[in-house]
Amino acid sequence: MRRAKIAVVGATGAVGRTMLEVLSGRAFPAAQLVALASPKSAGVRLPFGAGQVEVQALQPGSFSGVQIALFSAGSAVSREMAPVAAAAGAVVVDNSSAWRMDPQCPLVVPEVNAAQARDRPKGIIANPNCSTIQMVVALQPLHQAAGLRRIVVSTYQAVSGKGAKAVAELRRQVSESARGDVVRPEVFARPILGNCLVDWKPGADGYTEEEWKMVYETRKIMGLPGLEVSPTTVRVPVETGHSESVHAEFERPLSAARAREILGSAPGVVVIDDPAAGAYPTPLEASGRDEVFVGRIRQDPSRPNALNLWVVSDNLRKGAATNAVQIAELVLGE
Amino acid sequence: MRRAKIAVVGATGAVGRTMLEVLSGRAFPAAQLVALASPKSAGVRLPFGAGQVEVQALQPGSFSGVQIALFSAGSAVSREMAPVAAAAGAVVVDNSSAWRMDPQCPLVVPEVNAAQARDRPKGIIANPNCSTIQMVVALQPLHQAAGLRRIVVSTYQAVSGKGAKAVAELRRQVSESARGDVVRPEVFARPILGNCLVDWKPGADGYTEEEWKMVYETRKIMGLPGLEVSPTTVRVPVETGHSESVHAEFERPLSAARAREILGSAPGVVVIDDPAAGAYPTPLEASGRDEVFVGRIRQDPSRPNALNLWVVSDNLRKGAATNAVQIAELVLGE
Repeated sequence: MRRAKIAVVGATGAVGRTMLEVLSGRAFPAAQLVALASPKSAGVRLPFGAGQVEVQALQPGSFSGVQIALFSAGSAVSREMAPVAAAAGAVVVDNSSAWRMDPQCPLVVPEVNAAQARDRPKGIIANPNCSTIQMVVALQPLHQAAGLRRIVVSTYQAVSGKGAKAVAELRRQVSESARGDVVRPEVFARPILGNCLVDWKPGADGYTEEEWKMVYETRKIMGLPGLEVSPTTVRVPVETGHSESVHAEFERPLSAARAREILGSAPGVVVIDDPAAGAYPTPLEASGRDEVFVGRIRQDPSRPNALNLWVVSDNLRKGAATNAVQIAELVLGE
Repeated sequence: MRRAKIAVVGATGAVGRTMLEVLSGRAFPAAQLVALASPKSAGVRLPFGAGQVEVQALQPGSFSGVQIALFSAGSAVSREMAPVAAAAGAVVVDNSSAWRMDPQCPLVVPEVNAAQARDRPKGIIANPNCSTIQMVVALQPLHQAAGLRRIVVSTYQAVSGKGAKAVAELRRQVSESARGDVVRPEVFARPILGNCLVDWKPGADGYTEEEWKMVYETRKIMGLPGLEVSPTTVRVPVETGHSESVHAEFERPLSAARAREILGSAPGVVVIDDPAAGAYPTPLEASGRDEVFVGRIRQDPSRPNALNLWVVSDNLRKGAATNAVQIAELVLGE
């Protein structure tokens, strides 16, 4: 892979900081790293590898000579600045929801649809939603074996998916609770410590934006426009690491043993599934890792063509930063 | 209702203490309350109404003159002592799993199958598992309207379901975390704070005992031996209040609006479902309440005969103590 000038937009956020970690951890061949954020963060020094990188204020001229720009600064910034970066010649890998459903922007999870990253008429490749990424990494190899027909999924999502402020709030509530104080909600509408929240805007049909992302993004990434997806998204008091209870129905019978075998050699997947030994993935253990962990692989009690799975992954890494950097590696390898 | 002599076996446990609270809170017509526990707890004084009750050591002679004995001291004690209590003339309402699947013991949720409480050849009425109770209270009225065919359920279960020691462990881990100390697991196999656990013994098929309870108990209570139930049970860092993401398929179409209407007048159910206003049930708010709270009532995105529901209830109250006391009220009203 050639060395490249890389920009990270939104470098001071939870995902942005993780992008810097992942870039240095994967020995990404960056000749130069440009860390960009809003003017108020200009001058902040962020850890990068053994050293530091100084944050610069994002502006239209920021992308001069940049080959790849990783965006994670929210949809508004992406909508405005991703085309600017693309016009300056950068390939944009965008972690916001701004471009995901644009038919001219591929939505890429390298383990599933790497080839689509090449077809990017706008110069923008969209990085999917965290809860979608880990689910499709686990389901794609099973789909290839038995034909995926339907998903019923319930999520157990970590607070870091809402950003660094949400992590700080959970930690503050832990301290408040330990002192016997009242637990104050600010970032979340209600206390998140010791609670389960529906932490996304619902539409008229009652489904949240997060739930619709899991429906539409999964269909687009897997290339299955008719796939039935029935989602329930829940925020739980976990710092980092999304867990998902996935019920998957297939066209053809698929045993738990065969699914375990398939997933055992699937790219990006680690199977932890020894019930007798108490081995299964947890968010605490998945945190800081790049893989998607799958356990509790069980045949549906009454249907031979359905499985239940427990899918866990670090939402900041594979759910965001790692997947974006993997896409950048694809681009760099072209 | 006539006044009766009531025994609570396992009075010092999390559920036993809640039974005392519920008995006094519901102004249960007890002429005399006998609090029983293991010999090591004898002499302990427990709060009961405005006063206290002194714990006596459980022994075969404990049930003399007792009309109703509420058991919550684990399966081993129930297997041994419930028949002793019944032989002494008491009607046993047993909260353990010991008698639930015995064909000669009715398994009762008063909102669902109250009439079956009368048919108790062994003198023992079983109280179902917490996660099952709240689910069947929510589903029975919908079943009557549209014919329940299949359930896919994922739980978010509170630590108090594992007893007072588990609650103490979660609180200790909150303090450890606030101090920056390592979080030590003792009652749970791994840290529960900031984590999601599979906290039940799995069988060879990978399903846990808790999951099979949800299958078999639901079928027995609802009188639907062929009902398909596909469960995933998860322990989350919540003190009290189980939440469930329930996907229910029916024989006939059932709209979310109609389901909301049916549940709005269903016994024991409170609908909290105004997505635009952010109104939905949470375990923190359900804690200390006796009802089953249902929200997020949504039509399945691709099937007119399926709904997604979010069902929350206090696992110590409706999931255990309140349901047992309601059964005792049925018996007393005969």
